[in-house]
Amino acid sequence: MTTSAGTSSYRIAVDCMGGDKGPAEVVFAAAMALEDIGPEDVLILVGQEELLRPLLRKAKIADNPRIQIQHASDVVEMDDKPMQALKSKKDASMLRALEMVKSGEANAMVSTGNTKVLVGAGTLKLRPMPGADRPALAAIMPNQTGHFILMDVGANPESTPEHLVHNAVLGSIYAQAALGIDRPRVGLLTVGTEEGKGGERINRTHALLKKLGNRINYVGPVEGFNMFEGDVDVVITDGFTGNVLLKSLEGMFYMLMGLVKEKAGYNPMYLAGGLMLYPILSKLKHHLKPERNGGAPLLGLSALVMKAHGSSSRHAIRGAIRLGREALKHNIGNKMRTSLSEANALLLDAAYGEQGH
Amino acid sequence: MTTSAGTSSYRIAVDCMGGDKGPAEVVFAAAMALEDIGPEDVLILVGQEELLRPLLRKAKIADNPRIQIQHASDVVEMDDKPMQALKSKKDASMLRALEMVKSGEANAMVSTGNTKVLVGAGTLKLRPMPGADRPALAAIMPNQTGHFILMDVGANPESTPEHLVHNAVLGSIYAQAALGIDRPRVGLLTVGTEEGKGGERINRTHALLKKLGNRINYVGPVEGFNMFEGDVDVVITDGFTGNVLLKSLEGMFYMLMGLVKEKAGYNPMYLAGGLMLYPILSKLKHHLKPERNGGAPLLGLSALVMKAHGSSSRHAIRGAIRLGREALKHNIGNKMRTSLSEANALLLDAAYGEQGH
Repeated sequence: MTTSAGTSSYRIAVDCMGGDKGPAEVVFAAAMALEDIGPEDVLILVGQEELLRPLLRKAKIADNPRIQIQHASDVVEMDDKPMQALKSKKDASMLRALEMVKSGEANAMVSTGNTKVLVGAGTLKLRPMPGADRPALAAIMPNQTGHFILMDVGANPESTPEHLVHNAVLGSIYAQAALGIDRPRVGLLTVGTEEGKGGERINRTHALLKKLGNRINYVGPVEGFNMFEGDVDVVITDGFTGNVLLKSLEGMFYMLMGLVKEKAGYNPMYLAGGLMLYPILSKLKHHLKPERNGGAPLLGLSALVMKAHGSSSRHAIRGAIRLGREALKHNIGNKMRTSLSEANALLLDAAYGEQGH
Repeated sequence: MTTSAGTSSYRIAVDCMGGDKGPAEVVFAAAMALEDIGPEDVLILVGQEELLRPLLRKAKIADNPRIQIQHASDVVEMDDKPMQALKSKKDASMLRALEMVKSGEANAMVSTGNTKVLVGAGTLKLRPMPGADRPALAAIMPNQTGHFILMDVGANPESTPEHLVHNAVLGSIYAQAALGIDRPRVGLLTVGTEEGKGGERINRTHALLKKLGNRINYVGPVEGFNMFEGDVDVVITDGFTGNVLLKSLEGMFYMLMGLVKEKAGYNPMYLAGGLMLYPILSKLKHHLKPERNGGAPLLGLSALVMKAHGSSSRHAIRGAIRLGREALKHNIGNKMRTSLSEANALLLDAAYGEQGH
C-alpha cells in the first residue's frame, strides 16, 4: 500500500474536519484535485465517515478508486491547545492524518485546521527531520513579477540564528519545487542592508549564511520593499515577524480594496470607473491571493505536512494538495536531509574555526 | 529668546540639509508651515547660509521675522555612520540643530536626514528623558476609519519588555496630541490574541502592561489585521518588527498601485475604468500617505526631535513641522516625564511583589 519515496505515485491524507467552511469544502477540493495529481495517486479523506459518505456522493467521487476514506471520530477545534488535543482527542482527524504520515500509510497530509495544534502535534508526533530543530511555515506571496516564499510565517516565533539558517536551506529547496526556480535567491529580512544593522540575531545569521558558500544562493540582507520588487525568491525571517507581516499585509490589502470600492461607490462621478474597477480588482485579487498557492508546508519535519488557511475555499485547498504533490514529486524530503547535513557540517567547521581564534 | 515650556510660542529648528530632495524642498516647506504654526512661533532654518539665502528669497520669506537662519557648514550624508558623523562633522546642520534643542535655543527640531545618525546622535547629545532608556520612532498610519500610531518603527531594533512598556506610555500621550484622542486604545502587536502566544518577550510585556492598571488604556494583544480595522489607536512593537512592517506595507502599496495601473492600462476594455481610476487612486494615496502626517517623533528623548522620511515632499515636511508644533502645544514632554515616572513606580512595585512570592 505504502508508496516509498522515489516512485512516482503518492498517497496524500486530507484532513476534512476543523476548517472554517466545514468538510464539504474539503471534499469538493479533493474532487477537483484529482485533475492535478498523478493517475496512480490516492487521496485519503480523513474525518467522520457518516458525514463524508454523502458528501462524496454529492461530489461524484463516491466510487472513485483514487479516493479513500479514513474514519476519525473526533475533531480538533480552532480554540484547542496542542497538549490538550493530543491528550483528549486521540481520534481527531488531524491527529489521525499525522499518524498516517508517521506510519507511512500516507506520504503527505493537508489540513485547514488549527495551526497551533498542527505545529505542536506535528512536531511531537513526526519529530524534526535529522539536522533541523524546529519546523517553519513557508507561504507563497505575490510580488511585482511573480511570487516569492516568505518563511517562517508563524511556526516558531523565537527563531535562533541556527533555525534561520536551516530555514534558508529548507526554503531554497522548497522554492525549486513550488516556484520552479533552479537557484532561488535567498534574502535575510532586516531593517537596513548595510552589514551590522538589525541587531545581534541578524548579524549572527548573516555571518552563518555567508559560511554556507554556494550551497544556497544567498543574496544578503533585504528590506520590506525588496520583497515586492521581485529582487528575491525566498525571504527568511523569524516566525514572529513573518506572522505579523502576513496578517498585516492581508489586513492592509482588505482595507485598500474596501477603500477603493467605497470611494468608487460614494461619488457618482466615479460610478463608471467603479463598475470598471471590479474586473481589475478581481484580477488583482487573483494575482495576490493565488488559489493555486493556497497552502504553506510545515518544513523541517520528518514528513510533509501542508497547512492551508482555516478559511480556505475549495480552490485554495485544491492548491494546497497540488503544492504538496509537487513537493513529493521533487523529493524535497531527501534533498532537504542531504542539504541540512552539508550545511550543519559547514556551520560546525565554522564554529571550530571561531574557537581556534 | 528661549521660550520655556508652558508658554504659547515656540522656536523650531529645521534641518534643511541631508534630505533626498535638497534644501529647496525644506525651505518651501517652512514657508508653507508659517500658516500652521502660531503667530509668535519662529522657524530656525539650519544649513549652509549661502545656499539658504537665495532659496528664502525665492520662497518669499527672506524678510519674514518668523524665519531665521542658523549657519552650519557641513552636511550629514545618507551613508554616514553615527560615531563617524559625531566625530568628523561637528558643524553639520543636523548636529547643529540637535545642539540648539539641547541648549534650549529651540524647543524642537525637524530633520529629513539620515535616521541612524539622528537616532544615534540624538540619543548621545540629548540623552533619554528621565524614566526612559531608549528613544522610539512613532509613525502615523492609515486604517479603515482614520489613523493609528505604530511604534517603534526603527529606532531600537532590540526592544526589551521594559522599553515596550515605556513606548506604550509615550505613544499614548503622543496620540492625544497627534490624533486628538483622549483615551487612546493601546495594543501590543503579536501573533495571536490568546495569552501565552508570541514568545517570552510578548508575555512579559503583556504582564507589565496589565500592571499599569488604568494609567493607559491597554486593550491587550492585537494582530496585524486589527490595526487596519481601526480596533486600536496605538500599536506597540519592537523596532525591528515595526521597521520591517513599515517598509513592507509601503512596498506592497506601491506594488498594488503599479499592478492596478498596469492592468487598467494594458486592456482597452479597462481604459475607461483606468482613466476613472486615477482620481480614486490619488484620493487613496492621500488617505494612505497623508502629507499632514509626514513626520515621526523620536519619543523618549529629553527634547522633541521629529524625523521626516528622506524623500519627503515639501507637503510632508510641512506636516512634520505642524505635528512637532502640535506636540509642543500639548506639552507632551512634561506629560511623558510624569507618566513614565508613575509607570516605573508601578513596575517597581510589581517587581518587589514578584520577589516576595
